[in-house]
Amino acid sequence: MRALVKPAAGPGLEIRTVPVPTPGPGEALVRVRAGGICGTDLHIEGWDPWAASRMHPPRVIGHEFCGTVVKVGPDVHEVSPGDFISGESHVSCGRCHLCRRGEAHICEALQLIGVDRDGAFAEYVTLPARNAWKMPPGTPVDVAAVMDPFGNAVHTALATDLSARSVVIMGCGPIGLCAILVARRAGASSIVAVDVNPYRLRLARRLAADRVLDARREDVVRVVRGVTEGAGADVLLEFSGNAQGLRTGLAALRNGGFAALLGLPGQPVELDLANEVIFKGIRLQGIFGRRLWETWYEATALLASGLDIRPVITHRLPMARFHEAFALMRSGKCGKVILTVEGGTRG
Amino acid sequence: MRALVKPAAGPGLEIRTVPVPTPGPGEALVRVRAGGICGTDLHIEGWDPWAASRMHPPRVIGHEFCGTVVKVGPDVHEVSPGDFISGESHVSCGRCHLCRRGEAHICEALQLIGVDRDGAFAEYVTLPARNAWKMPPGTPVDVAAVMDPFGNAVHTALATDLSARSVVIMGCGPIGLCAILVARRAGASSIVAVDVNPYRLRLARRLAADRVLDARREDVVRVVRGVTEGAGADVLLEFSGNAQGLRTGLAALRNGGFAALLGLPGQPVELDLANEVIFKGIRLQGIFGRRLWETWYEATALLASGLDIRPVITHRLPMARFHEAFALMRSGKCGKVILTVEGGTRG
Amino acid sequence: MRALVKPAAGPGLEIRTVPVPTPGPGEALVRVRAGGICGTDLHIEGWDPWAASRMHPPRVIGHEFCGTVVKVGPDVHEVSPGDFISGESHVSCGRCHLCRRGEAHICEALQLIGVDRDGAFAEYVTLPARNAWKMPPGTPVDVAAVMDPFGNAVHTALATDLSARSVVIMGCGPIGLCAILVARRAGASSIVAVDVNPYRLRLARRLAADRVLDARREDVVRVVRGVTEGAGADVLLEFSGNAQGLRTGLAALRNGGFAALLGLPGQPVELDLANEVIFKGIRLQGIFGRRLWETWYEATALLASGLDIRPVITHRLPMARFHEAFALMRSGKCGKVILTVEGGTRG
Amino acid sequence: MRALVKPAAGPGLEIRTVPVPTPGPGEALVRVRAGGICGTDLHIEGWDPWAASRMHPPRVIGHEFCGTVVKVGPDVHEVSPGDFISGESHVSCGRCHLCRRGEAHICEALQLIGVDRDGAFAEYVTLPARNAWKMPPGTPVDVAAVMDPFGNAVHTALATDLSARSVVIMGCGPIGLCAILVARRAGASSIVAVDVNPYRLRLARRLAADRVLDARREDVVRVVRGVTEGAGADVLLEFSGNAQGLRTGLAALRNGGFAALLGLPGQPVELDLANEVIFKGIRLQGIFGRRLWETWYEATALLASGLDIRPVITHRLPMARFHEAFALMRSGKCGKVILTVEGGTRG
Repeated sequence: MRALVKPAAGPGLEIRTVPVPTPGPGEALVRVRAGGICGTDLHIEGWDPWAASRMHPPRVIGHEFCGTVVKVGPDVHEVSPGDFISGESHVSCGRCHLCRRGEAHICEALQLIGVDRDGAFAEYVTLPARNAWKMPPGTPVDVAAVMDPFGNAVHTALATDLSARSVVIMGCGPIGLCAILVARRAGASSIVAVDVNPYRLRLARRLAADRVLDARREDVVRVVRGVTEGAGADVLLEFSGNAQGLRTGLAALRNGGFAALLGLPGQPVELDLANEVIFKGIRLQGIFGRRLWETWYEATALLASGLDIRPVITHRLPMARFHEAFALMRSGKCGKVILTVEGGTRG
Repeated sequence: MRALVKPAAGPGLEIRTVPVPTPGPGEALVRVRAGGICGTDLHIEGWDPWAASRMHPPRVIGHEFCGTVVKVGPDVHEVSPGDFISGESHVSCGRCHLCRRGEAHICEALQLIGVDRDGAFAEYVTLPARNAWKMPPGTPVDVAAVMDPFGNAVHTALATDLSARSVVIMGCGPIGLCAILVARRAGASSIVAVDVNPYRLRLARRLAADRVLDARREDVVRVVRGVTEGAGADVLLEFSGNAQGLRTGLAALRNGGFAALLGLPGQPVELDLANEVIFKGIRLQGIFGRRLWETWYEATALLASGLDIRPVITHRLPMARFHEAFALMRSGKCGKVILTVEGGTRG
Repeated sequence: MRALVKPAAGPGLEIRTVPVPTPGPGEALVRVRAGGICGTDLHIEGWDPWAASRMHPPRVIGHEFCGTVVKVGPDVHEVSPGDFISGESHVSCGRCHLCRRGEAHICEALQLIGVDRDGAFAEYVTLPARNAWKMPPGTPVDVAAVMDPFGNAVHTALATDLSARSVVIMGCGPIGLCAILVARRAGASSIVAVDVNPYRLRLARRLAADRVLDARREDVVRVVRGVTEGAGADVLLEFSGNAQGLRTGLAALRNGGFAALLGLPGQPVELDLANEVIFKGIRLQGIFGRRLWETWYEATALLASGLDIRPVITHRLPMARFHEAFALMRSGKCGKVILTVEGGTRG
Repeated sequence: MRALVKPAAGPGLEIRTVPVPTPGPGEALVRVRAGGICGTDLHIEGWDPWAASRMHPPRVIGHEFCGTVVKVGPDVHEVSPGDFISGESHVSCGRCHLCRRGEAHICEALQLIGVDRDGAFAEYVTLPARNAWKMPPGTPVDVAAVMDPFGNAVHTALATDLSARSVVIMGCGPIGLCAILVARRAGASSIVAVDVNPYRLRLARRLAADRVLDARREDVVRVVRGVTEGAGADVLLEFSGNAQGLRTGLAALRNGGFAALLGLPGQPVELDLANEVIFKGIRLQGIFGRRLWETWYEATALLASGLDIRPVITHRLPMARFHEAFALMRSGKCGKVILTVEGGTRG
């Protein structure tokens, strides 16, 4: 089969012909329909220190995807051939104390599809059957392909109750954009979305935010105070991973506010904890992955009740044009970019 | 001034001329614009055992209301003459252990306006200034008049996070109807509303519920299981105060579900606690009044972000036609009924 | 092997010789050291309507137990031969929406050891390996034998934070007695324990309760108000399953209090919901089984930090004397009764 | 009367004779029995940038104290002459949105006794009557004098449920030492306390910690993993305000752990948020002051149930020997230091 492969240590990717994998016990073999390109895939392509320290090439990459189950290994109860599924890319061990406490999303022995085992930018992929989430027949392929990053947004936005709360969304990449949609649906009374990338600011303006701010030109704290009667925001959803973005977001919070942090700073961040966290009685929560499987139930319910994340998806290219797709990602002139593998637009 | 008065122990109400009250320390004098008739007012009018045991006539009644501050007593900081306000009818003592723990809504020495002190079906009313919630200028008078029951709905519906949750709303009186609106805004993924009164079922059908059921004709549990893939609902919001309604609502909940109970059963209720609560791991929460003042901030934010509760208000009559208004209430052929005192439709 | 068996529909139990079971995939075979007799075992022995509707004899009974793993089936990672384990009697399916939401304790397809599959009053028992909780070597056999009911107490007592809270414990059977120990350890500022059985009241008096009350002779509500400056208790832990006990417990709660309900009423219970739950803003939570596996981590940590539940265990008899043990249970003149199978007192 | 005064901008304090203050409306006049010296008092004495920016001398200092009410102003309901009280040093406005949401401890217009208004190192002090917490007669003066810092410890330690949880306490000043006592009482299954000051490490060793570590000599993370079966601690209580202390504390937390931060870093802190907070799914909460008044109810309940904080108090000197007392504080060779004003050891 054709697959997008990190062939060896160092930058670059290539399309190769590799054997179709065989599903082991508890695993499903999935014919891939489409996948989303994640920032992590760029780090792998560029072979940054994280990728260099973690990956063992050759490796098929790609971890946001959907497809159709074509075969299952022994001891599979969750899915059957013919099921249209979206993949959860985090494979938890099921046996560590975190998995047994209902916190499998921060399992101590987590494996990542497309990083620690072969991924989904390929005609076929195997994954544990419990990581294959059945999607309702007829779901758009593009939506099913990006349930994983959509789930990041759901996990972050629903980490606290947003009903009648004022929200700042820092960072309008695909996950931040999805979070705008989720926060609105969850009853946020006001949403101020912030970025510095003009393309993404334009995308954000088409969604349901009350205010979309360019942090380079506008005084975020002042605007937030303006829409909250001077109090500051109730909630910060941090997707930028940018130190200044985080500091601005915290400064925009009211005393007693809540911050959910998903964006990953590339290096240590300097924070004025006394003034921005302790005196203000702020709560912060680190968010990783998706709660297994509460987030998937929530994401599915949001889609079923009409939430449409397709405006966040701006490009779709066949896998063979991956060079173009990755260049687009690096340019920042895009929302979510989809690589299509098999044809069709509906599951 | 003219006021609607319970003149003496026993059934009946009458319009009387009484002195304009004087605001004491910490109090505001309000010129009343309009008020809502509550079920409690019917109990007072009919002089049921609860009214007989609690009230000391003569007493001006009415506790859902809005108006304009015309004068303030000493030590008032919260409002000024000219402010358009909505009244919180529960006057907490501010000194008991519950008030000091942030639970003033269940204060041990709670006084009720229109029951324990003179109420607002009158040209003027006094209330503690902190019970006068400033409404944005221009707010519709009808909306401001019913912030108190709207607050009941907000308190109940936001007692747990409804985002991406399936909800059963048992009882479609004015509070239940408001709760449909709040639950939809708060992100409920599905809403099944239930009543037995055809007028109210028709009203409910105009709002945002996914399904509106007549409990006399339809199998609520079966329908709820149908819209929740067999699981049962995540949340029950109980407004009926009816024993069978509560039992049906609990039966419709999934294992691990949550029930907020606001409707007041008139007598003890028989519940199959083992099967409907304990084996299922259900959480129940009694809801009384409005959280002081979290609920008011939430209700205000909901209105500011566009929630419109006016479809719940079906009738408005001048106070002089109170007989007609109370008869309408008793007939059940109404949503919220407003008594107007001064003219105008905007604050 | 020798096993205590419900031979056929109808009252009675008998010791029989049955084949040693074989562990299937994911299962462990355990040589039983000792087991605890539960109220459920009495219902099975007496063949009450619940037992008659659920069980399919012949069936080896017994579900509170400890023992040594002697063999494991395929695909077992959790335990190895030689491990000393305590059994979790609730076998969850691992695949329903509740299991996947981290609520496996209320799994929709729960199976009970000793009821739905053969139990542990026998020389050997099989169970899913993930239901075998490894106990530290040297743990007293009697303690390891009753981790299941001790876990009920832990689940109930830790359902809310008891630090600096006043607690009423209604019902001083073995689980209620354990809950006294847990509540004290968890920082309860005052503990009032209540029962009507003189033997159990005497046992309770030896533990850490501040007051032990005979509900037939003493005014529980008055005493609770006396030790809480008139406020009422913060928390009720209900183990009696008795309607009057529950009503008294609720009456003893302060406004805003919390009640965890584990005791199973045999029939519907009449509650004054308006006055005892809704006006008071009470929260109630049904408690079933043990959280899988949070409760086990907590119970283990409690034992490791010195909690000693042995005072709750009053009798130990060899399995052959089961008639005597069950008679003792029926008499009520006991705490927890242990049936020993293999010799030794330490794991 | 004699009072310890910051006479003018710049370092230094002096005993002066000043007029006895008069209680205004809602205020009480208290004859001071004793007070505790806080780190803040050292900052005021040394006139650090924070003091220089906030204080307007001359000002009587001192904010941890107890005494006897001798007179009350108008509109006082909370206390009466003769009451033995402990002072809450944070005076909230009662009218901002935070006060009205039950978050008065982070009031936007908070005033500090001994900083923004005259304090309690004096024969008399006035304070709002609601800030005067009645202590049971007979309470040791030393205990009542330090309810304010004890309350900091209670607020921090009870920010999450510690029952059956492993806890790291970073910083063994008086608040950290109190937190050891509270955490043990609240059911922590293991407590590792950390400091670098030999005097304080010795004090900590006399309390209930399982392990007391000198961070300069011992590997905190390794020890914590050792006592938690490799998992890391469930909870960090941060009192050091030291950047390295915080980083070590976070590194010692398990995935999904909780950190309550009370210690105030003097400058921005560099944190590896990606690895220490986000990937691990950590929750952090800034803690300021005491919850008004939940913390006081909890602190009172802890004392009533036998918690004895006197081992944390190492020195008591008459106010006239303040130079000596402040020098002792600067030396670090002390726990809590008390200045006595009036005689006697019991309230």
